[in-house]
Amino acid sequence: MARSDKRQMRLAAFLSGLGAHVQAWRHPASAPNSASSIATFIEAAQIAEAGKFDFGFIADSTFITKDSTPYFLSRLEPITALAAVAAATSRLGLAATMTTSFSEPFTTARQLASLDLISGGRAAWNAVTGALEGHARNHGGEKLYDHALRYRIADEYIQVVKGLWDSWEDDAFVRDKQSGHYADLNKMHTLNHKGEFFSVQGPLNIERSPQGRPVLFQAGASEAGRELAARQADAVFSGSVEDPVQAKAYYQDIKRRAVAHGRSAGDILIFPSITPVVGATEEDALRKHREVSELLDIDIAVKYLSRYFSFFDFSQFALDEPLPELGDIGKDSFKSTAEHYLRIAREQQLTLRQLALRAASPGLQFVGTAEQVADRLQALFEDQVVDGYILHSYLQPLGLREFVDQVVPILQDRGLVRREYEADTLRGNLGLGFPVNCHCSSEHH
Amino acid sequence: MARSDKRQMRLAAFLSGLGAHVQAWRHPASAPNSASSIATFIEAAQIAEAGKFDFGFIADSTFITKDSTPYFLSRLEPITALAAVAAATSRLGLAATMTTSFSEPFTTARQLASLDLISGGRAAWNAVTGALEGHARNHGGEKLYDHALRYRIADEYIQVVKGLWDSWEDDAFVRDKQSGHYADLNKMHTLNHKGEFFSVQGPLNIERSPQGRPVLFQAGASEAGRELAARQADAVFSGSVEDPVQAKAYYQDIKRRAVAHGRSAGDILIFPSITPVVGATEEDALRKHREVSELLDIDIAVKYLSRYFSFFDFSQFALDEPLPELGDIGKDSFKSTAEHYLRIAREQQLTLRQLALRAASPGLQFVGTAEQVADRLQALFEDQVVDGYILHSYLQPLGLREFVDQVVPILQDRGLVRREYEADTLRGNLGLGFPVNCHCSSEHH
Repeated sequence: MARSDKRQMRLAAFLSGLGAHVQAWRHPASAPNSASSIATFIEAAQIAEAGKFDFGFIADSTFITKDSTPYFLSRLEPITALAAVAAATSRLGLAATMTTSFSEPFTTARQLASLDLISGGRAAWNAVTGALEGHARNHGGEKLYDHALRYRIADEYIQVVKGLWDSWEDDAFVRDKQSGHYADLNKMHTLNHKGEFFSVQGPLNIERSPQGRPVLFQAGASEAGRELAARQADAVFSGSVEDPVQAKAYYQDIKRRAVAHGRSAGDILIFPSITPVVGATEEDALRKHREVSELLDIDIAVKYLSRYFSFFDFSQFALDEPLPELGDIGKDSFKSTAEHYLRIAREQQLTLRQLALRAASPGLQFVGTAEQVADRLQALFEDQVVDGYILHSYLQPLGLREFVDQVVPILQDRGLVRREYEADTLRGNLGLGFPVNCHCSSEHH
Repeated sequence: MARSDKRQMRLAAFLSGLGAHVQAWRHPASAPNSASSIATFIEAAQIAEAGKFDFGFIADSTFITKDSTPYFLSRLEPITALAAVAAATSRLGLAATMTTSFSEPFTTARQLASLDLISGGRAAWNAVTGALEGHARNHGGEKLYDHALRYRIADEYIQVVKGLWDSWEDDAFVRDKQSGHYADLNKMHTLNHKGEFFSVQGPLNIERSPQGRPVLFQAGASEAGRELAARQADAVFSGSVEDPVQAKAYYQDIKRRAVAHGRSAGDILIFPSITPVVGATEEDALRKHREVSELLDIDIAVKYLSRYFSFFDFSQFALDEPLPELGDIGKDSFKSTAEHYLRIAREQQLTLRQLALRAASPGLQFVGTAEQVADRLQALFEDQVVDGYILHSYLQPLGLREFVDQVVPILQDRGLVRREYEADTLRGNLGLGFPVNCHCSSEHH
């Protein structure tokens, strides 16, 4: 599991496919129920595995209203979907989004450890705090906790989950038929956590999983999110790399914070999401991009935008006039994304139409020939703006297939990505260390 | 999906195998990690599917201590395990045990609906209330609610889950690429549940699943449990059929209660668990049974017994003297099972050793040749003591394989069980009706 000397570009893919935007399902080549059909999840996972990707990822969110855009209305639940994908793949990492705000840490720890056992060490957890009022109303509450409090809860929640994952030492289960010795109970540890938000006794009723602990992802962009990620996460989903200067500042900030917490810069990997469109020629790629873009209606794009502001009513503004000053709407919702949109609207004097289309559909950054796309991926990677990429398939799963068929071989020829998996586990393939059990005394390791 | 005219015997199997008792893992033919290895779950499921069984079942419980017996210490979480099994099977029903005491109804509804979509309509939920103090301590609590309150909570919880499963009408998702019509939002319904224990807004962000609602199992044996089952469940896991007179009284009681709640007697199916051991001759079967029974140590059998009484310390009593009067210990734990054991100990003047062995290992009721076992299954079925059986594999998964290879063909020849699945869904195969969406006005159906 030793990391290879050369820094390697990481690749990952969204398995549940929105496509390039919320109406991409209308394209003839799109699977129209790609959010709720396990067959398309498995197809995407198998393509990603053929491309030797590090992991497949399932985003999540549970609150819907009549203003929700198509993709959100019906989708498979991530951990169940990934358990099914696990049975149909063998090396691809499997990252499930699960909330820290409306669930029991014991159950989350157990389901993720179970996925790690089922998949032979390929589970990852994207811990999210939930960003819409309606999330709380689906779970017995009235109001969402404010942003800062959600992150304090998340921090303790993740500590509890990690502690539960260490309930058993790695070699506790003997299962010796001859002697009848099943498990060494001295290697079972009771957590007895009593914190500010959670009280959890333990131990977890599942042996330590192949990765020791499933890989932890976070999508920290706000101050609280960055701190949480730097302290606890193995990898971070960042936003776009549209603005490479800003993206590099983010990259350096996260690495710096990790180091400040006593970790090494390589202990945390940074993955922005991208939506590549590959064509035989640049014109061909632009044509494909345009063909999909034309399927997006402006009213749906506005609805998509409004979700980041807790379904704020943007329809009160004219489509083709610059947006007025909107204060800090969205501050307790998708805080950083909302702030980002308000800032670019202000700085670039965007109209509502321009902002909505920008939010709802991918730009031209990774549209081009396979060589052009590879060049851009390489440049950002080598400039240490990113450690890797997580791919949206502009048409699910066609975009992913085109990328794997056409771009991956170029990246392989350049020695940027693997030709074969180095390890059996996601942690091994990502070059992350095996986490020492927090309950073990040092002589065990 | 019409029920065939002739009443059909139902068969099901435990997929996660304890074996005949908690030390059966020591047998050379046993998979020693059958509680935590997805490969053995899948193998058992594929054997059951080859035998045209109705469903595979995963029991569950989360609290462990140093007094727990081997099987409980490390086990896969049911819904993740069944999602993986779903990907490796095509017709077998998949029943997951999930608690109503320490979880969010929104998440439970969603994970089960997701399993139903993933499996193409094969999901079932065994709703349990949790019976050990330690369960509460793993989930933020100190004390377990008393038995009656747990059942009141369960009743409301199940209502919420059923309501959430009806968030979308069956034909709400159009996904018409031409018109761009993705979903009919008039067919989306918000639950707005505000009850005594739960407040859940909805709607669920998942389309109505292939079964409308996953099949609901309950294991009601106490008064509260029987009422809950009769009102809400599609099927009941009963205890043993060791005493056929008592088992028949139970059967009639549940059917009578269901009818009293306005349901038909056929709307609820009753499944006791059995542990068959099939041999070439009766002597051969008895030898196999003895060979496994001899692996059980008395101290582990006593530990197994004590779990039903919240780990009551039985070691204070002599092994070979009749048990003293023990009052109502266990009343807030596994209430009915505890009462059952105390009653037979009293009535039959059992010693601790006799009671522990009786609790921890199966009797001789279904030990014999394939013909003998088939005869006994048939007699109880035709006498309306049961609607079917759920099989423990005395050695996992060998016992199940022997049963499918040797007993199932006899039952098929007698016209008691199917030769081919009648339907794609579990509900269809069980002959249960398709549940009408509670939010639909009658003109929709």
